This record gives sequence, structure tokens and C-alpha cells, in this order.
Amino acid sequence: MARVLTPRAEDFPRWYQDLIAKAELADNGPVRGTMVIRPAGYAIWERMQSEMDTRIKTAGAQNAYFPLFIPESYLRREAQHVEGFAPELAVVTHGGGKQLAEPVVVRPTSETVIGEFMAKWVDSYRDLPLLLNQWANVVRWELRPRVLLRTTEFLWQEGHTAHVDEADAREYARRILHEVYEDFMVSVLAMPVLVGRKTARERFAGATSTYTLEGMMGDGKALQMGTSHELGQNFARAFDIAFSGASGSREMAWTTSWGSSTRMLGGLIMCHGDDNGLRVPPNVAPVQAYLMVVKEGDGVATTAAKLRDELRAAGVRAALDDRVDTAFGRRAVDAELKGYPVRVEIGPRDLAAGNVVLVRRLDGSKTPTPIGEVASAVAAALEADQQSLYDAALASRLERTVEVSTVEEAIEAAATGWAKMPWAAVGAHGEAQANAEGVTVRCL
Amino acid sequence: MARVLTPRAEDFPRWYQDLIAKAELADNGPVRGTMVIRPAGYAIWERMQSEMDTRIKTAGAQNAYFPLFIPESYLRREAQHVEGFAPELAVVTHGGGKQLAEPVVVRPTSETVIGEFMAKWVDSYRDLPLLLNQWANVVRWELRPRVLLRTTEFLWQEGHTAHVDEADAREYARRILHEVYEDFMVSVLAMPVLVGRKTARERFAGATSTYTLEGMMGDGKALQMGTSHELGQNFARAFDIAFSGASGSREMAWTTSWGSSTRMLGGLIMCHGDDNGLRVPPNVAPVQAYLMVVKEGDGVATTAAKLRDELRAAGVRAALDDRVDTAFGRRAVDAELKGYPVRVEIGPRDLAAGNVVLVRRLDGSKTPTPIGEVASAVAAALEADQQSLYDAALASRLERTVEVSTVEEAIEAAATGWAKMPWAAVGAHGEAQANAEGVTVRCL
Ligand SMILES: [Zn+2]
Ligand SMILES: [Zn+2]
Repeated sequence: MARVLTPRAEDFPRWYQDLIAKAELADNGPVRGTMVIRPAGYAIWERMQSEMDTRIKTAGAQNAYFPLFIPESYLRREAQHVEGFAPELAVVTHGGGKQLAEPVVVRPTSETVIGEFMAKWVDSYRDLPLLLNQWANVVRWELRPRVLLRTTEFLWQEGHTAHVDEADAREYARRILHEVYEDFMVSVLAMPVLVGRKTARERFAGATSTYTLEGMMGDGKALQMGTSHELGQNFARAFDIAFSGASGSREMAWTTSWGSSTRMLGGLIMCHGDDNGLRVPPNVAPVQAYLMVVKEGDGVATTAAKLRDELRAAGVRAALDDRVDTAFGRRAVDAELKGYPVRVEIGPRDLAAGNVVLVRRLDGSKTPTPIGEVASAVAAALEADQQSLYDAALASRLERTVEVSTVEEAIEAAATGWAKMPWAAVGAHGEAQANAEGVTVRCL
Repeated sequence: MARVLTPRAEDFPRWYQDLIAKAELADNGPVRGTMVIRPAGYAIWERMQSEMDTRIKTAGAQNAYFPLFIPESYLRREAQHVEGFAPELAVVTHGGGKQLAEPVVVRPTSETVIGEFMAKWVDSYRDLPLLLNQWANVVRWELRPRVLLRTTEFLWQEGHTAHVDEADAREYARRILHEVYEDFMVSVLAMPVLVGRKTARERFAGATSTYTLEGMMGDGKALQMGTSHELGQNFARAFDIAFSGASGSREMAWTTSWGSSTRMLGGLIMCHGDDNGLRVPPNVAPVQAYLMVVKEGDGVATTAAKLRDELRAAGVRAALDDRVDTAFGRRAVDAELKGYPVRVEIGPRDLAAGNVVLVRRLDGSKTPTPIGEVASAVAAALEADQQSLYDAALASRLERTVEVSTVEEAIEAAATGWAKMPWAAVGAHGEAQANAEGVTVRCL
């Protein structure tokens, strides 16, 4: 079989780019740094959203929508925040054919505008906690864009909450970290993320504490998959999110924010993809079972349609490919690229023996399977492969993580994977030293 | 009971504003013309999205995402399109701390950028029809903003499709019109929309034919609830969406686009709201049954929780209000404002007799109901009231529509409702004459 993708070992960034193009997941937009998410990619994102959204609602947050445009002055109210975001802002200076009196920025994140409204809505301690989430696009001008990973515009969810005290805010930031993000990444994305805190240097602009979930990619590098921040009273003071306490005294709220984005889709690709294409974990796959008519023949089309309906009735997301005018080999390569967990190949020869062929994307195994056993075999394969993808990713992470005791050793280890070392051994200048070599302290 | 809202008959626009504020549906954003959609409003929008999205997918379209920023030059490629949108554009001139070489516009709609990508993706007639949809925010600078109805930024879905010939494009534009929009508006929103075509004067910028769905609001005025456009080959030519036909010849595609927005939420409010607040049709209500603990007492809390679980198990979207530290009267007024279709009031006195009280938002009727019959009574009420809301809206529309035969009569009739007249009687200058009096020809 001709080589479809640049092998990962040869050139990992190139493999990533090839895969995204050939699996038709995304494309670069006409304005530098922007992207188009194509139907095959967007369908995965929709499944991610749905799984995340359920967890977010279970954690008590309600969805809302805040404006894309933010007055420039809002950003300046929190000193670290404006310093952190100023270099990345897109600024609208003209609207409705006229120059605007005050330029507006396209939201890089919504702490400021949501802070303004929280201040309006919060009056008494009875209004707290106020737990909000929004699904939206945000813009951060990107000088070195990379599709799905670092893009000028991306899609995300951003949660914003206000609490009566620090303990409640901290507990909620951690609840989101574990019950929403970690649970989703582990049980749906099959990614063994490392969960911890960021160093002061790597913290979000305006946060007092930033929690992170780091995934290991196929090249041994780390990708930040989501973050949850304690914002202390910084934004509450800047926007006057005050309330009357149970005793009647006026108090400042404590806020949190937390976000995860389409970058997770990039992470999913780089964590599970192989040299033949994407491998989508069954729990997040828009198509779990891909039924392929190999070629026409006695009863082939009707059997294929019957199996599709049977699988759907059993709760499997099944799709039927009966494009017999396209060469089967080409369709099979495409199915590998797209990473459907299970393929069911239905052809006249096997069918004459009462069989179809079940192909698992994970290991490429091909098993002739009697028609009557397809539904149970598919269900078993989906369950097993969800777990196997996680196990393989975990084994790879452990193999590529070495324990070191000096910053020099850590820098060396980071060339092929992760280094784990005592924070005390990093010392006063260790983090800056590592940064100078392109190595970051990801997770405490 | 104290008057909660300005009555509709007194000042309809004021009633609308009051209702949106007091039911906590939305708010004005800090940048003029933008809006905040609050959790109570957004939850309705999410239900609308979900119902629409299912219908869009059934019609064969796939979701995707295209960039917010569009090069200014793209808009200029289709002459009528740029002329139509130029006065409403928001323009980004600075990004990442620098002046941009070419300013970019914030999408007012995505025909142009999607046209560019369709041209890349379409090669042969086998690639057609190409059926895309996206859920996104768009920006059209609004000089006379009105929350949810005319806002500088709004949320919408926009469908974009390419076809081999005019007949196929026309059929699809009409399929969306009837099977997605009309079906959704009638069977979910309970709105008897009038479906037809726009005049050349009212058409979308770049379309050859625009289909519209017009709803009648509580003040007798019309609101455009959605549109579906045939774009002929205008955008295909501007963006070179060409394909090789079955015979090998190079041909231009025929495209359509269709959209519906958060304005539908404004329409829902203005169509069904009454002087006590919103009335949400059960099929689109995020909360269909609102269980209220009147006050504490023997078994009240446990019965309330049990009923909620029982209703949920029966597929009813049920929520429990046990905030007994807030006065019951205040909570009841709030429930009226928010328009929950059915309230179930659970108090110690009724409960001693084995009853709860079922209150229907539609007519305010209060019916003592034995505990064991709540689930079936709620289901029956929801089904009946969905139909009754539709019937009432239809009766009102018919009552307020008069048949006229001259433009002068039409202008007079438009003061309180709709006028229906033969298009021939409008004459060569009739539409301009009506426009001058603030009356538009809505639907052919
Ligand atoms: Zn955990
Ligand atoms: Zn129809």
C-alpha cells in the first residue's frame, strides 16, 4: 500500500498537518491564523461539546451568552489581565461605516464583561454561588499559528463563577478540574492527562492559582488540554462584584474561570493518531461502526442496510458507505484516515458463507463474523478498544517520563518526553534556565 | 395583585422590554447594540437549536465552522452583496498590536468565505450536492437596536449548499423552508407562520429568490422568523464554484443559503406572551413542569422530590423550587413571568387531602389533583396547551388580517394587523408608496 501520510517518526509536525488535510478535519482560513473546521472534524467537536456540556450542567453551571465585543476600557481594569492579553488583541475601529468613539476589542476571553454583569446580578449572599458557562469563539492574534492547536480564532467553553469565600471558589475550581475536565478526558477521550498546578510564571493573567491538565502527544511533548483558575478577588474588586453577607456586611466575591477549546481536538489527534491516520476513541466517535459495501452482489445492499439499522437500534452510531462506484481500496484508506473505530465490510463472497468482516482500527485485525453476531461483536470491540487506547497512551507516557534530579537532566529528557523532578531541585533560577532551552515547567 | 408588566395594549414595545428584563431573559451589552442572553433565555435558545439541528441533519446537511474574520476583498466579489452589507460592517484594523495590511471584516454572513472553500472542495458532479450548516455569531452594525430582535451581534444558523442545477437548488431551498423552518415553527414554537416569497425590493443581497416565514406578533405586526434564498449562480461565479459534469464539461454550481437567528426568541416572546409574562410552548420549554413547595410541612419536601423524579422518568422536563425562605407569592409571580407551562404547587393543606394543585400558565386554571394522577395530568396539559397556543395565535392572525384591494386600504389595515391583497393591485409604484408609510410587502 502506498504511503498515505508522512510517518510520525520522520516528521511529527508534518504528519499532523498531512493527517488533518487528508482526513478532511480542518483547513486554514483566508485570514492568517484562522481555521475552517470541516464536517469530519466538527462532528467530533460536537460530540466533545455534548459530553462536556452534560458534565458542566451536572456541576450546576448554567449556559449563557455574552457579547463578542468588549469596550477596550474593561480590559484595563485588571492590571495583569490587560498586560497578559494586550499583545494578542484584535481591535475593531470602524462600525456601521463610521470610526468608533471608543475602539472595541474582540473578546480574547470574557472575564471582564462577565464580571461587569455579575456585579449587576449579585446582590446578596443568597445569589451565590453564581455558576455560568458559555460556548463561544474567542480571538487571540497568533504569530505562529498551527491549525486546531494555536489559532487566532478558536471555539471553546469558558466557565465563570462567583462565590462567597475563597474555600468555596477553590473547591469549585477543583471540582470542574476533576469532575468535568479530567473525567471527560480520561473516560471519553481516553487520554491519561496529568493534573496539577501551574507555576507563577505560567499562570493565567489575573489568576492566583491555575490548575492544568496536560496530555502527552505522540512526539513526547506536552499539550495543555484545559485549565481552571482561582481568580481570588482580583476581578471582583476590578468590577465590584460585591454582596451583602448573612450578617449584613458588604463583602467582595471570590471568582473562578475555566476553559477548554478546539485545541482538545488537536490533542486527540496527536495523542491517538498513528501512521495510517486518526484513531478516534469509540466514546467520542461520531461514527463508531462504518459499514462498507465491498461490491454489489446478492443481498449485499439489503444486509448492509439491515445491519446499520440493527446497530443503531442497539445504540451504536453507525454509518453506511455504499459508494461502490469508488474503488474499495480508496474507501478503506479513507476510513483508516478518518479513524472509525470499527469497520464492517460486507461483500458477496463472505456473505455467501453467512459472514461479514469486522475490522478494528486499533490493531487492524480482521475477523469474519456471522451476521447474527455483528451487534454483540461490535459492542464488545468498542468497549475493549476504548480501554486499549487509554492503556496504550498511559504506557507510552510512563515510558517517556524519566525521573531526574537536576535542571540540566530535565532539559535533556525533554527532548524525547517528560521529566519529573522535585520542585525544590528546580531552584530559584531553574525555571528561567529551562525556559531558555525551550522547556517549560508544565505541572506541579 | 400588583401590576408586574406594562400591559401590552398600553405600550407594546415597553411591555416587551419589561418582560425581557423581569423574566431575566436578556440584557443589553456594554457596546451599543450588543446583548447578553441570560440563562433563562439561553436555555430556550438551546432547546430551539436542538430541535432545529435535528431537522437540519435529517435534511442531509452537515455542520462545520468557518472563520469569524473575512478579508474585505471577499465581500467585493459579489456586487449586490457588498452593496447590501457595506453599511453594517464591523472592521478590524489592528491585530496583535499592529495595523493590518488588509483590514478584515467581522462576518455579517458567510456566503463569501464558504463560497471560497466550496470552490476548493467541489471538483466533480459527484461532490454535489454539498450541504453545509454552521451555528455561529454574526455582526451587523445596528443603528436602532432592540434586544433579541435587532442586535449588532446575534446568534444564528446559516446553511450554505451547492447543487448541480437550478432545479435541485430550488428544491433544496424549499425543502429547508418547509421541512426545517416551517415544521419547527409550527410544531415546536406553536407559531402559525405565513410562508411565501419576498419582493425583489426585500430580497437578500445577492439572491435571485428569497423565501420567508412571517410570524404575527401580539401587536399585529409581522416579524421575519427565517429566510431561505436561491442564490442562482451569483456566488458560484464570484468564487468559481465549478465542477466537471457527468459528460466531462465544466459547469458552474447553483447555490442556496438559509438562516434563522436568536430573533426567533424575540418572536416567540411577542407572539405568545401575555400581560403576566412569557408563555413558553411546552415543546420548546426547558422547564415544562415547575414543582413549587408552597411551604414546609409533613411530607411536603419528599413528595415534591418524588413527583419531580416521577415526571422526569416520564420524559417531562421538571424542576423543583423549594426556596421556602422566599415568599410564595413572589415565586409564583416569577414563575408566571418565566412562562413555565405547568406549575405543580405542593403544600401541607392540600397534601393532607392527598392532593397537589396543578396550575396551567395558558389560562391560569388551578386544579386540585391526586398525587397518583399528577404525571398523566401534566402530560395531558402539556399536549393540550401546545395545541391551544397555536390555535390562539392562528385565530388572532386571522382576525387581524383583512382582505383589501388598494394600497391605501392596505396602509390603513397595517396599523393594527396585516392586509392581504392581489399582487397585481399593488401596481408599479404601490410597494414604494407603502414603504413610504412604513408598511412593507412581507410575503407573496
Ligand atoms: Zn482527579
Ligand atoms: Zn409548508
